[in-house]
Amino acid sequence: MGKPLDADGLDTIFRTARSANGYNGDPVSEVDIRAIYDLVKMGPTSANQQAARFVWLLSQEQKDALADYSSGTNAAKIRTAPAAVVIGMDLAFNEQLPWLFPHAPDAKNWFPTEEVRRTHAMRNSSLQGAYFIIAARALGFDVGPMSGFDHDKVDAHFFADQPTVKTNFIATFGHADPATIHDRLPRPEFDQFNRVR
Amino acid sequence: MGKPLDADGLDTIFRTARSANGYNGDPVSEVDIRAIYDLVKMGPTSANQQAARFVWLLSQEQKDALADYSSGTNAAKIRTAPAAVVIGMDLAFNEQLPWLFPHAPDAKNWFPTEEVRRTHAMRNSSLQGAYFIIAARALGFDVGPMSGFDHDKVDAHFFADQPTVKTNFIATFGHADPATIHDRLPRPEFDQFNRVR
Repeated sequence: MGKPLDADGLDTIFRTARSANGYNGDPVSEVDIRAIYDLVKMGPTSANQQAARFVWLLSQEQKDALADYSSGTNAAKIRTAPAAVVIGMDLAFNEQLPWLFPHAPDAKNWFPTEEVRRTHAMRNSSLQGAYFIIAARALGFDVGPMSGFDHDKVDAHFFADQPTVKTNFIATFGHADPATIHDRLPRPEFDQFNRVR
Repeated sequence: MGKPLDADGLDTIFRTARSANGYNGDPVSEVDIRAIYDLVKMGPTSANQQAARFVWLLSQEQKDALADYSSGTNAAKIRTAPAAVVIGMDLAFNEQLPWLFPHAPDAKNWFPTEEVRRTHAMRNSSLQGAYFIIAARALGFDVGPMSGFDHDKVDAHFFADQPTVKTNFIATFGHADPATIHDRLPRPEFDQFNRVR
């Protein structure tokens, strides 16, 4: 059991954190990205699958490429963000299990069909995508997650040499321009989507 | 931009946090569960889908039922945990979008096939599953996420009256018995699963 977060901490990762649609001029560095990943990789995944594959974009050329494959409203946000990330999932994640889950040498055979591998990769790379959002916020960044883009084109551009990797979702990050934050969308009351038994 | 977390906060949600395999005798209450969900629901989902449906289990009868449908090693953990949760996903999440995403009255028509809805529900309920893990840790709880169970039986028991809801994954939570924590599994070096471009 860790020490519970104080009110500021809960605000930073959940309560007052907001998705960013534009950023101020502060840069993001590779040092920042490595600090984020050092947190992301500690989050739990099924059998330590670590199914996510991250392509971090700092160059204007690569941000522009991602923008070209994204929906209209997303494209402008990507071009002007200090950083973006393509969060992929490796459908052959199980090939890595001999070293990621070494006490079960048979683990790579637990996922015999592509359908099973796709379900696990989707679940676990999404968990890691959420860890990315929370980790970036925990380090003081704002994130703008997006799912409106052409998956085939993004896969072809960013994972051309890794044909087993498919894009899950994408995001921009940096320090938000507060003027770009939308009004908070409605949140459910507990009883709408929860039961206690 | 929120105030960055201090070292204790980063430890609590990522760095020293560990999956629990057993718990001490401390109870979990519905008040605790509502506090966790009040954080979970603030995490971002695509078009505010809020696709996750949570069934929280405090009664021994319901924990035993979930254990009966789970793999051998998981079953004993579920029976003896103070609380468990079934994290489902609603494949008809789009029917809720008129009130969750009110500025786009057409949003419920953006997901025309079950395949598309399943992909979005899986992605977004997994994000919310990760928010649950982090939120519980942020409030001082330990979590034991699991994916080894009979999906059809768990769906039939916990979502019998909600046929569009399918189980994504399950977890126990409470305050860990430190003696049950396993050795940390290997974590990737940055260059194994990341590229900067």
